[in-house]
Amino acid sequence: MTTISNGVNVQALLDAREALKGAPEAAEFTWKATSKWQNGVHSTVSIQGFHGLGQEQSHKEESVFAADHPEVFAAEDNGITPIEYLLVGLASCLTAGVASVAQNRGIQLRSVESTVEGKHDIRGILGADSDVRNGFNDIKVTFHIDADATKQEIEALVAQSQKRSAVFDALTNPTDVTVAVA
Amino acid sequence: MTTISNGVNVQALLDAREALKGAPEAAEFTWKATSKWQNGVHSTVSIQGFHGLGQEQSHKEESVFAADHPEVFAAEDNGITPIEYLLVGLASCLTAGVASVAQNRGIQLRSVESTVEGKHDIRGILGADSDVRNGFNDIKVTFHIDADATKQEIEALVAQSQKRSAVFDALTNPTDVTVAVA
Repeated sequence: MTTISNGVNVQALLDAREALKGAPEAAEFTWKATSKWQNGVHSTVSIQGFHGLGQEQSHKEESVFAADHPEVFAAEDNGITPIEYLLVGLASCLTAGVASVAQNRGIQLRSVESTVEGKHDIRGILGADSDVRNGFNDIKVTFHIDADATKQEIEALVAQSQKRSAVFDALTNPTDVTVAVA
Repeated sequence: MTTISNGVNVQALLDAREALKGAPEAAEFTWKATSKWQNGVHSTVSIQGFHGLGQEQSHKEESVFAADHPEVFAAEDNGITPIEYLLVGLASCLTAGVASVAQNRGIQLRSVESTVEGKHDIRGILGADSDVRNGFNDIKVTFHIDADATKQEIEALVAQSQKRSAVFDALTNPTDVTVAVA
């Protein structure tokens, strides 16, 4: 039997699952971002610290992201649009899930690529038609996976990834978002 | 009367609103991302092209984003987590809205900062408790705004931004997401 490796430490995740069953407060994470307006619709958002396992945590480095609107919206295109960041999160979450599930099932992956398309009728955000929602109408994700597995096993990997995906859940189900002025 | 400028071309947006009322097909945008698995739960996501105003469009440059899990999840922390990208999108979308609405209302902004916190019980994604959802439990956004306006006017800016925000809608209301294997 050859050892397969997709680079995911599944044992650590299974151990964490068992440990957190008895310590629910340690499982309560808070992810944080801070945003700074630059000019026009251009802003930068920084991420480094978060809370979890009962204490303050930190990514190794601070990450800074630029968001703007494209030139066809009469803006400067200093970065991708805010709504495109949701597609970044969705693609990467499902991909991480595919790798983790494959590792757990002993399936060697060779390549995992996906394309994500979010349909968006911009009459909503422009206020041109109050019957049009502001967000995406729908999102379609298509995976191209090369692995030592049957088509059926690959489809099962993707289905299980979807079932455990934080971002898939956040986009397909409502979340309470509170916005306040300090 | 002094001219205020927040750098937002509001006239272009108002013109687009009127133009798209009579051309709904031009208002149908498709935002696109392509993802590539690297190793473990590390992936990279690229964004450049999109469709809108009846034709293929492109950001000036390609943007590439890394996603990974932090070291406390036994991963390499080569980038922020997928779910944190949702906070980047939310913060930047609401900030763009504040700038646009302020411009439209003749309010000069001096600074707009926000902090976003997403509560996330990771027992969901780990499969430790099937009653815990995979996504955020809730998200809180706090704005700090310095502007030539009363507290009440500033609160109204933020409320209107929220009302027209693509990402706020995408997170607070469900979207149909289809995941397929090619």
